[in-house]
Amino acid sequence: MVTKSLVTQIIETRYEDISENARFEAKRSLLNWLGVTIGAANHESMDKLLAVARQMGTQPHVTVFGREEKTDMLFASLLNGMSSHIYDFDDTLLETVLHPSAPVFPAILALAENKGKSGKEVLEAFVIGCEVEARLALAVYPSHYWRGWHITGSVGGIGAAVAVSKLLDLDHDKTSYAIGIAATEPVGLREMFGTMTKPFHPGKAAMNGLLAALMAEQGFTSSLQSLEAERGFINVLSEENKIDILTEKWGGKWEVEKNSYKPFASGIVTHPAIDAIISIQSRFDFQHGQVESIHIKGHPLVKELTSKQVLSTGLEGKFSVYHCVAAAFMHGKAGVDQFTDECVNDETIKSLREKITLEVDDKIKEDQVELTIKLEDGREFTEFVEHAIGSADKPMTNDQLIEKFLDVTGDIISSDAKKELVDLIYKLEELDDLTPFFELCQPVKSLNKR
Amino acid sequence: MVTKSLVTQIIETRYEDISENARFEAKRSLLNWLGVTIGAANHESMDKLLAVARQMGTQPHVTVFGREEKTDMLFASLLNGMSSHIYDFDDTLLETVLHPSAPVFPAILALAENKGKSGKEVLEAFVIGCEVEARLALAVYPSHYWRGWHITGSVGGIGAAVAVSKLLDLDHDKTSYAIGIAATEPVGLREMFGTMTKPFHPGKAAMNGLLAALMAEQGFTSSLQSLEAERGFINVLSEENKIDILTEKWGGKWEVEKNSYKPFASGIVTHPAIDAIISIQSRFDFQHGQVESIHIKGHPLVKELTSKQVLSTGLEGKFSVYHCVAAAFMHGKAGVDQFTDECVNDETIKSLREKITLEVDDKIKEDQVELTIKLEDGREFTEFVEHAIGSADKPMTNDQLIEKFLDVTGDIISSDAKKELVDLIYKLEELDDLTPFFELCQPVKSLNKR
Repeated sequence: MVTKSLVTQIIETRYEDISENARFEAKRSLLNWLGVTIGAANHESMDKLLAVARQMGTQPHVTVFGREEKTDMLFASLLNGMSSHIYDFDDTLLETVLHPSAPVFPAILALAENKGKSGKEVLEAFVIGCEVEARLALAVYPSHYWRGWHITGSVGGIGAAVAVSKLLDLDHDKTSYAIGIAATEPVGLREMFGTMTKPFHPGKAAMNGLLAALMAEQGFTSSLQSLEAERGFINVLSEENKIDILTEKWGGKWEVEKNSYKPFASGIVTHPAIDAIISIQSRFDFQHGQVESIHIKGHPLVKELTSKQVLSTGLEGKFSVYHCVAAAFMHGKAGVDQFTDECVNDETIKSLREKITLEVDDKIKEDQVELTIKLEDGREFTEFVEHAIGSADKPMTNDQLIEKFLDVTGDIISSDAKKELVDLIYKLEELDDLTPFFELCQPVKSLNKR
Repeated sequence: MVTKSLVTQIIETRYEDISENARFEAKRSLLNWLGVTIGAANHESMDKLLAVARQMGTQPHVTVFGREEKTDMLFASLLNGMSSHIYDFDDTLLETVLHPSAPVFPAILALAENKGKSGKEVLEAFVIGCEVEARLALAVYPSHYWRGWHITGSVGGIGAAVAVSKLLDLDHDKTSYAIGIAATEPVGLREMFGTMTKPFHPGKAAMNGLLAALMAEQGFTSSLQSLEAERGFINVLSEENKIDILTEKWGGKWEVEKNSYKPFASGIVTHPAIDAIISIQSRFDFQHGQVESIHIKGHPLVKELTSKQVLSTGLEGKFSVYHCVAAAFMHGKAGVDQFTDECVNDETIKSLREKITLEVDDKIKEDQVELTIKLEDGREFTEFVEHAIGSADKPMTNDQLIEKFLDVTGDIISSDAKKELVDLIYKLEELDDLTPFFELCQPVKSLNKR
C-alpha cells in the first residue's frame, strides 16, 4: 500500500503546500546545478555522447546546457544529467550521499522547454521529485549503497519519473505506472567510479525517468506496488525494512531543505583545510615565497582518503589535501580550474605542496581542521575551523553560491548572461514562460574548452 | 581478470570458429524470434511506445518489424525487443529460464540495417552475444532470479552490448567498456510480470546494450572488470561464486545449441497435454459432439499452475490446461489465436472444457502426460507422451518451426513474403546485404489488428 499512499501524496501536493523555505532551496539547487552542468558541457565524454546522438539524427528540440547543439528530450536529459555530475561538484544530501538534482532537473527541464511549463510548475515538480528520491534513498540506505549501488543513479530514476509525472499532471494510476517503469531499471554500480560511466549514471536515470513518465502518460501499464512488493524495488535492492519513511510526516520539513552544496571541487574531507587556508590568506595576504611551512591537523579520514603526495593529474589533485591547500593558497579558491593537469603540475604549487605536513587527531571532527602557517620571518598564524563552509552547520550563503556559479561556468556563457540567469533563477516562480532562461544558457560563439 | 579473458575470447572468435550446428540453431532462433516479433507488432503497448517515439521526432532509419513506421536504431531495438516478448512465445534456455533472442536480435538487426552488415556477421554476433548472456545467466542463477530479477532483461543488456560490439568489430578496451556500460544498468524486476512492463524488459535491455556499444565505439570509458569486481555485476546482483562459467570450455558446445522453442502459446506445463490431444485428434478425427470425457494425468505443476476453470480472458486461458486442451481439440493447434478473449468465451470450447478432468501423478515427469479420451459410442483412446514437443528431448523440427512462423505472423505480412523470409533465413550466411530481408518484413497495407 505504500506506493499507493505515496502517489496520493504526490498528486495532492500543490505549489501552495510547499514552504517558502523549500521553494527557496529549490532555486538554490537549480543555480548550483545549472552552474556545474554548464561548466562541464565541453568535457570529452559529452562530445562522445553527442556523437552518438548525432548518429541517431536526434531532433533539435531542447537545450543541452552550455552547448550549441540541441537534441530531443531524451538525449538532452541524458546529456545534462551526465554533465552535472562530471566534476563531482553538484549538491548532496549528506545522510545518504544522494546528489538529488543530477537526475531530476534534466528530466524536468527537458519537458518544461518542450511543452512550455512555468517557473512554479518546475519548482513544484523538483521539490516533489527530490522528496521521493530522498525518502527512497533513506529507505534503502545503507545496505543498498554498501552492496554496491550508486544511489544517485539507482533511486534518481524514480525521482525523475515522479517529477515529470507531476509536471505532466498524471493521475494516480499513471503516476504509479511511471514509478513502476522507472523502478524496474535502476542505474549505477559503484565499480564504475573513476570512469566516464559514473556521471553517466544520473544522466541515464534522468532519461529513464523521463521516458517512464512519457510512457505512463500513454497508459503503458506497470505494477501499482513497485516499491514495496515482495519482488519490488526495496526488497530486491536493499536489506532494510524502513518502508514507512516513504510516506510519514509528508509536508513537514521538505528534504530539499537539507540540501548542501560544495564550495570546492575536491573530496569533501579536504574542505575544512581549504576553508582555513583561504581564510588566513585573505586576511593577511602574504606571498608563497614567504612561507616556511604549513601544518594541517585534521580528522583521520583526511589522511585515509586524501594524502596523495606524488601527483600528475588533476583528478589525483582532488584526492590530495596537499594540492588542495597549495592551490587554494595560490588562487584564493579551489574550483574546477584548480584541479586541471596543468595546475597540478605547476612548479610553484608543487614546491608549496612540499612545505605542507599532515597530522591526524581523533578529537577533530570531519568538518573541522586546525591549520598553522609559519613564515620565514618567524610569524605564525593558526586557524581553527569549527564548521567548514558547505557543511550542514555552515551552508553556503547566496553570495557564495552566486560566486561559485560565476566561476564554474567559466567563459562558456557571457558575464551578462550569467548575471541575468542568477536574477531569473531567484525569481523563477514569477516566470510563466521559461524561454528567456533557456536562451540565456546558450554558449558564446567562441567556445573555450576546459 | 574474468572480464578481460572473456573479452579476449569474444574478439578472437570468428565465424569460422562457430560450429555448423550452432550456426544452424542461430538461424532457427532468428526464424522463431522474427515470427513472434511480427505477430505482436500491433499490440496496444506497441502503439503506446510508438506514440512516445513520435513525440521525440525519431528518424525513420530502421524497421519496426510488422509496422509501417520506422524509427531510429535505439527506439527500434526497444520496440522490437518488447514485441518479441509480448506473447511469451519466444525461445528459452531451460536451465536459467533466459529468453536469449529477445534482447540480442533487436540490437543487432537495428545496427545491421543501418550500417549494412552481412548475414554471416549477424549470425556471428548473435551466437557470441547469446553465449555471453547465457553464461552470465548461469553464473548468477538461481539467486539472482529468486532475489527478483527478470534474468532476460538483467543479463540481456550485456548480451546485446557484446553482440553489437562484435558487429562493430570493437577492440579489447572498447568491448570491455561496452560491457561495463551495459552492466551498470540491469533491467527487470519480476514484480512487473502481468503488466506491459514485463516485455519492456528485454526491449530496454536491447536498447541499453546497443547504446552502450555505440558509446564505447566513441571511446566512452567504463570499468575494465565490470563483471567480477567487488562492486561489479555478479557480486552486486547475485550470491553465487560461479564466475569461471563465463570463460571455461569456450568454443566447445555453444549455448545457442541448447535453445528451445515453444510450440504452443501457453504456459510450458500445459504443453504435454496439448501435444497429446493434437496427436489423438489428428489420427482419429472425431467431432466434439462425440466426446464424453477427457481425463488428463499430469505432473503436479500442471495442477498448481494451470488449473483455472472459470475463465473470461485470453490471458487466463494460457493458465488453464482445460482451455488449452479444449481449444487444441477444436483448432488442431494452440497458437496466439487460441488465447484470445473470443476463443476463451466460445460456447463450444466452454462446453468441451467442462468435460475435462485433471489428476496429478508424482511419477509423471514435467514433459510427460497421459491423456484419455472417451467417446459416447464407448470407444476410448489413451495417449502417453514421453517427451512433449518443444522439450529438450524432442525439439521442434524445422517444419514445425516454419509452421509456427507462418501461423504466428497472421495476416500482418503476405503469404508470399512469409515463404520468402523462411527461405532467406535458412540461407542467411549467403547474404552480403540484408536489404531484402528487411523489405520482406514490411506489413501488407491493410493492417489486421490482433
